[in-house]
Amino acid sequence: MKRSPLAPEKFPDIPSISGVRLACAATGVKYKDRLDLLLAVVEPNAVAAGVFTCSKTAGAPVEWSQAVLGKHQGRALIVNAGNSNAFTGKVGMSHTQAMANAVSKALDCNDHDVFVASTGVIGEPLPCDRITESVPRLFSDLGTATWQEAASAIVTTDTFNKGAYREVDLGGKTVKMAGIAKGSGMIAPDMATMLAFIFTDAKIEQKLLQSLLFDGSNKTFNCITVDSDTSTSDTLLAFATGDSGVVIDENNNGVLGGFKACFDDLLEDLALQIVRDGEGASKLITIDVSGAENAQAARTIGLSIANSPLVKTAIAGEDANWGRIVMAVGKSGEMADRDRLKISIGGVLITDRGQRVEDYDEAEVANHLKGQEISIEVELGLSEGKARVWGCDLTHEYISINADYRS
Amino acid sequence: MKRSPLAPEKFPDIPSISGVRLACAATGVKYKDRLDLLLAVVEPNAVAAGVFTCSKTAGAPVEWSQAVLGKHQGRALIVNAGNSNAFTGKVGMSHTQAMANAVSKALDCNDHDVFVASTGVIGEPLPCDRITESVPRLFSDLGTATWQEAASAIVTTDTFNKGAYREVDLGGKTVKMAGIAKGSGMIAPDMATMLAFIFTDAKIEQKLLQSLLFDGSNKTFNCITVDSDTSTSDTLLAFATGDSGVVIDENNNGVLGGFKACFDDLLEDLALQIVRDGEGASKLITIDVSGAENAQAARTIGLSIANSPLVKTAIAGEDANWGRIVMAVGKSGEMADRDRLKISIGGVLITDRGQRVEDYDEAEVANHLKGQEISIEVELGLSEGKARVWGCDLTHEYISINADYRS
Repeated sequence: MKRSPLAPEKFPDIPSISGVRLACAATGVKYKDRLDLLLAVVEPNAVAAGVFTCSKTAGAPVEWSQAVLGKHQGRALIVNAGNSNAFTGKVGMSHTQAMANAVSKALDCNDHDVFVASTGVIGEPLPCDRITESVPRLFSDLGTATWQEAASAIVTTDTFNKGAYREVDLGGKTVKMAGIAKGSGMIAPDMATMLAFIFTDAKIEQKLLQSLLFDGSNKTFNCITVDSDTSTSDTLLAFATGDSGVVIDENNNGVLGGFKACFDDLLEDLALQIVRDGEGASKLITIDVSGAENAQAARTIGLSIANSPLVKTAIAGEDANWGRIVMAVGKSGEMADRDRLKISIGGVLITDRGQRVEDYDEAEVANHLKGQEISIEVELGLSEGKARVWGCDLTHEYISINADYRS
Repeated sequence: MKRSPLAPEKFPDIPSISGVRLACAATGVKYKDRLDLLLAVVEPNAVAAGVFTCSKTAGAPVEWSQAVLGKHQGRALIVNAGNSNAFTGKVGMSHTQAMANAVSKALDCNDHDVFVASTGVIGEPLPCDRITESVPRLFSDLGTATWQEAASAIVTTDTFNKGAYREVDLGGKTVKMAGIAKGSGMIAPDMATMLAFIFTDAKIEQKLLQSLLFDGSNKTFNCITVDSDTSTSDTLLAFATGDSGVVIDENNNGVLGGFKACFDDLLEDLALQIVRDGEGASKLITIDVSGAENAQAARTIGLSIANSPLVKTAIAGEDANWGRIVMAVGKSGEMADRDRLKISIGGVLITDRGQRVEDYDEAEVANHLKGQEISIEVELGLSEGKARVWGCDLTHEYISINADYRS
């Protein structure tokens, strides 16, 4: 699989995060000769937050992690790639518990202190022994894996490894945040996305971290789409070890605001890396919707545009077929008034007062569409609701990838 | 454009319908040397019913026809292809009225007695004069056009002309019904579909015909999808001239039931012809959902499967990737219980009790997927709600068609 043309130049430099140790292994569950198992262990005083897919057919690892979140201590995370252990019946849950148990035995904690995530094909029984047998080796190697290795151990159809790092000075001390993610197809997160894991050395209460993660993911992971298909395995987890000594709480709004801005920025970076690796994507599309009835309506309209096969193919063909954007606004079900609708592509206003702007600069729009980063702005002219969403184009490559992924 | 592999062998034989006269012309609005304008005139005592797109950015002809429906006498219908006169500002409505007026002058009736429909590119000003100048010729030719010519005058990206005919004996007399339709892309009707027009010689009150059309289209046109994109021009109209002398009313349930069954069958035939001409389609997919919370939930789940790019590409690749069907059920937002879900492809039960049926006949499923007509059954096991929806696969041809339709 060739690297996405939208990929960042290289994996970022990410330092270690105090209180977090990583290890990876190659189990051969599906792939040959590549890392496919990740273990992350955090210090006993760390806290964990998470958001998960809203799918009604979520996989066993999602059910497990959702159940333990907030009720037990987040001590470790184990992730395998190549088999999502989703729709695998009752045995699926026992395999998930076996993965947690292999970790908890070595760490001398409770099964429920261990988060589990799995990604890959749906409905195949998980060859669980290969994973549990690899756990002792993971513990003997603990602390040796780099972030790039960790990122590479969780990918499936991805064409590049996804990681991001931010640091922020708060009250004279530095807080570090590192994150990794995977995802390329079946991307239309509904609460979270495929898999993303974030680690920080900030000191923060679980409830506050959970609230920041929920809020941040709503503006980032929940605003991206590759193909409108929502995964059964979407999991986003954040761990905070506290080792920086920087306390984030609601009594210090300056510090909290600084942390939140940095945290949201990291989430957006990871979410956009997933869109940039959208199956077959050749263009990243940013859609800004404003003037909608409310923020939720703006997001729905943005996603209606971003998910429209006709808009996506028009962008792939570098065709300024803005009539398809009008169509996608109209079908969204949200309030719209044709005669107030303003549509711009690449900053050029194309429609106003319910019709085409007669003398708009077609050459400039055509030139913008030849680029890799496409900007669409839609102003509804109704109220103050706004949202930004991101998607990608729909190309022959998407068909080629998905007409024979499983076979 | 080569004829869809799913097209019927030939256009059906359709006799004339008493009280209906047709004429066609070539105006050159967009296409060269082909019919692109249709006039249908019905007798003064005829009634008309209609359903239209729910798009918030519907075109001027939709607004016009919606406004006159039921309030005025339906005397005539004028349809042009190649330009949808949608998103064309205030001038769009004046062009629509000009089309109606050209017809009403010749017919000596009110503008509001004339239905208007337009299909084609969105947002280009309609060269209305070419149409209105052709109207006198349409009237001098009235009664000369065949149903096949009428069907050919309303197509755009269609690869075959769509028509259907039914007749039913009721109380010793014969009622005839003829219909034509167009549509291939931007098909996810929300109340109706691209364009479809039905003519019958039954005698029926407008309100009852409207109710039958609403009910029938909900089970047919509103249950098809090609690409999840809802058009700005969807219009479905039915005209009843009464010339057969057969009275359809609620006092005679036997006759009403016979008429309704035949009418629904005609609607389904036309709706399926549109899916069979889905852009790039190589397979027709029929999805039967049962055991859902209610009928609406069943339809939502069916459309979630039919619209999933991952399900559609799997079918294109003849890959029994049933995990993607599980995913599409899960993302629909409707009630589902993973452990009760039963999925069959080609009549072979593949999943039961939340997991794969161990010994299901993979060869039989693979063989079924090689065919042109694919059957998927989903049993939710929750309640009695059921629905049937139809879609098509997603192929390279869809991308090729839509990456440069406008340019």
